[in-house]
Amino acid sequence: MQNDFELLASDQHSKARRGRLKTAHGVIDTPAFMPVGTQGSVKGVSPRELCELNAQIVLGNTYHLFVRPGLDVIKHFGGLHNFMSWDGPILTDSGGYQIFSLAKLRKITEEGVEFQNHIDGARAFISPEIAMEIQAALGSDIAMVLDECVPYPCAYDYAAKSAELTARWAKRCREWKGRNGETAKRGLTDSPVRRFADSMLFGIVQGGTFNDLRRASAQAMVELDFDGYAIGGVSVGEPEEEMMRAVESAEPFLPTHKPRYAMGLGTPPQMLQMIARGMDMFDCVLPTRLARNGTAFTAAGTLNLKNAEFALDKGPIEENCACETCRQFSRGYIRHLIKAEEILGLRLITLHNLHSYLNLMSQARTEIENGTFDQFRKAFVAEYKTRDAIPVE
Amino acid sequence: MQNDFELLASDQHSKARRGRLKTAHGVIDTPAFMPVGTQGSVKGVSPRELCELNAQIVLGNTYHLFVRPGLDVIKHFGGLHNFMSWDGPILTDSGGYQIFSLAKLRKITEEGVEFQNHIDGARAFISPEIAMEIQAALGSDIAMVLDECVPYPCAYDYAAKSAELTARWAKRCREWKGRNGETAKRGLTDSPVRRFADSMLFGIVQGGTFNDLRRASAQAMVELDFDGYAIGGVSVGEPEEEMMRAVESAEPFLPTHKPRYAMGLGTPPQMLQMIARGMDMFDCVLPTRLARNGTAFTAAGTLNLKNAEFALDKGPIEENCACETCRQFSRGYIRHLIKAEEILGLRLITLHNLHSYLNLMSQARTEIENGTFDQFRKAFVAEYKTRDAIPVE
Repeated sequence: MQNDFELLASDQHSKARRGRLKTAHGVIDTPAFMPVGTQGSVKGVSPRELCELNAQIVLGNTYHLFVRPGLDVIKHFGGLHNFMSWDGPILTDSGGYQIFSLAKLRKITEEGVEFQNHIDGARAFISPEIAMEIQAALGSDIAMVLDECVPYPCAYDYAAKSAELTARWAKRCREWKGRNGETAKRGLTDSPVRRFADSMLFGIVQGGTFNDLRRASAQAMVELDFDGYAIGGVSVGEPEEEMMRAVESAEPFLPTHKPRYAMGLGTPPQMLQMIARGMDMFDCVLPTRLARNGTAFTAAGTLNLKNAEFALDKGPIEENCACETCRQFSRGYIRHLIKAEEILGLRLITLHNLHSYLNLMSQARTEIENGTFDQFRKAFVAEYKTRDAIPVE
Repeated sequence: MQNDFELLASDQHSKARRGRLKTAHGVIDTPAFMPVGTQGSVKGVSPRELCELNAQIVLGNTYHLFVRPGLDVIKHFGGLHNFMSWDGPILTDSGGYQIFSLAKLRKITEEGVEFQNHIDGARAFISPEIAMEIQAALGSDIAMVLDECVPYPCAYDYAAKSAELTARWAKRCREWKGRNGETAKRGLTDSPVRRFADSMLFGIVQGGTFNDLRRASAQAMVELDFDGYAIGGVSVGEPEEEMMRAVESAEPFLPTHKPRYAMGLGTPPQMLQMIARGMDMFDCVLPTRLARNGTAFTAAGTLNLKNAEFALDKGPIEENCACETCRQFSRGYIRHLIKAEEILGLRLITLHNLHSYLNLMSQARTEIENGTFDQFRKAFVAEYKTRDAIPVE
C-alpha cells in the first residue's frame, strides 16, 4: 500500500514521534487529536468552529451513521464530507466497537456480526466486506478494519480466539479494498467509492490485556501490510497500567514508518503517556461529553463549573488560554449558563475543551521537535490533578 | 426626557415609519427586531453570532435574571453587558410579564407584587422602585416600567382597574429614575447605575381588549412623558384581530417622535401588520423557540424539518437566503441533526430563523425608504402560509 506518512522527528528520551500524514482531504500533523463526530456532527460544534480550532481531522462513527440517517441518505448526499459540510480529512471506525458496546442481541460468526441496533431494534448484519462498503460510501479518508472489541476483563482463551478472528476479518477487509479499489479506479465517475481507492486502511491490534496476544495480533496485522495500525480494545474499563501495557506489548512489532492510532482515549496525561509510547493519533469523546456536564479541562486538571465556588469568578476557565471562550467569557458567566441549562454554556466549554486537547497535541509536536518532550510530559503529568493518573516515571 | 429617536421616513400608504434610536451602546435602526436573551443568553447563540447576524439590540428578562443568577452576581460582574459579553444595546423588561405568567402565589397590592419564583419557590417582592433598581443594576439601555399584564380574556372592570394601577406604577418608575438619575450623575464612579441615568425608560400601555381603556392608558402614559411607549398585554392568547385592535386603539394617542414597541410578538406577517400600524420595535421568542423544535421560518411560511419529506433534500432551508446556515447546509442534513438530537441542528435553525426575522426588518426599512412598504407587506402576508394570518386588506 501507499505510504503517505512522513516521520519528521523522533524523541531521544522516549518513543515519541513527530510526523505528518497526507490524505486526499489534507494533511494531519501528528501527534494528532481527532474530535469525534459520532452522528455526522462533533457534538455542539460547527465545521467552521472546527476549522478555527485548527482541527485537522474528525472521526465519524460508521455504526451510528449506518443506523441513522442510514447509508442510502449519505450516498444520496455524495458521502459524509458533503453531508456534514466538512472538507477536511475524516477517519471512520468500522462500527465494531459500537456493535459490541451499544447494539443488542449480537451474534458473532466467522462471516460477521448480526445485531439489533439501539435506536429502533432493527436487525442488521455487518461483515468485514460490508464494513468496507459502508466506509467507502461514507467517503472515508482513513478506514478501519472490522474488529471484535473484547470487554474487560476477558478470559485468555476468548481473547486469543477473538484476536484471531479479528485478524481473519482484517485480511478480508484488506482484500476487499484491493479488489474494489482496482475496479473503482477503472471506473470513470468520481464518487466516494472511487475516491476510496486512494484512501487509507488501518489494521487494529486486539488481544485484551495479554502481552503475547497483543504481540501476535500486532504481527498478524503487520503481515497484512496496512497503511497504519491502531491499538483497539483499550480504554474499555481496564486499569490505566493495563492500558499502557497493551500498547507497550504491541508497539515494538509495528513498523516505525507507519502511523499508530490509540483508539478511544484518553485524558490529557494518558495521551502524553501514549505519545511517549510511540502513539501518533487519538480520538476521545471526553472533551465534548464532559463539557455537556459542565466540566472543563485545564493543565491543572478538570474543573466542574457547576460548583458554587465559581459563581463570582471573573477569571477565564484557564488563565492564558488562547481559546475563544477564555478570551471572552468568565467562569461565573459560564457557571450561570450551565446552571440555567443554556446551550451556550456547553458550547463554550466544548470549544475550550477541544482547544485544550488540540493545543496539547500542538505543544507535544513542538516539544518533540525541540527535543524537550520527555520533560514536558513529566511536568504536565505531575501538574495534572486526576484521581487515576499513572505515576511519573 | 431626552429624545434620541430620529424619524427618517414615513410611509404614505400606512403608518409605517423608518427611524433610528440612539443609545449609549449603539444605534438601533427601526423597525427593529430584538432577539430575546431570557437568562443572559439568546438561546443557542453566541454574542459573536449576534453581531454577525447584525442584531443591533437584545432583550434581557429582568425576572429570570433576578431569580437566577440573582442581582448580586450581575452587580458583581458590573452589569449585564459585561456579564454576557455583549456590548450592544440591551432592553430589559420590568419583570411584570413573567411575574404574571411564570411565578406562583402572586399577591398584588398598590405597593407592588409579592410572588414565589418558579425555580426554587423563594418568595420575593417587586415594587416599581425595585423594578427600576434591578434594571439600573443590570445596566439596561432601555428600561421598562413595572406593569400588570392582564390575561385574555379579562373582564372590563378588572382591565380598567389594572390599567390605572399600571399608570400609577409607571409614575413611580418615572419619579424613581428622575430622582436617582440626578443623584447618580453627581456621583463620580462609573457604574451601571451611574450610566442608567442616561438610559431610556419606556411606558407600557395596557387595557386588555377594550378600545377606551387602551386609549386612556396611552394618554396616561404620554402624560408622564417617557422616552418611548410599548403596547403590552398583546399576544397573550387573544385572536389576531384583537391584537391588531389593541394597537390601533392606542397608537393615535402616542407622539410620533417617540419609538413604539409592540411587546412579545409575533409571526413575520404579524410584525409587518404591526409596522403598518405604526410600531417600531418587536421582541419574540418564536425564532429561537421554534428552532429548538425543528421549525424554520421562510417567506412561504414555516417548515418542520423533522418531516420525512426533507430526508433527501439537498436544498437549503430557504432558496436565496444569505444566512450562514443556508449558504452551507442542506435541509436533509439539518433534518438528520434534529432527528438525532444533535445540538448543531437547533443551532443552525436558530441562526436561520434569527436571520429571517432580522432580515425582514431590514427589508421593511428599505421598503419604507423606497415608498413601497405597503405593497411589500401585502405581498408578503399573501405568500406566507400560516393558519391564523389575518387577511390582506
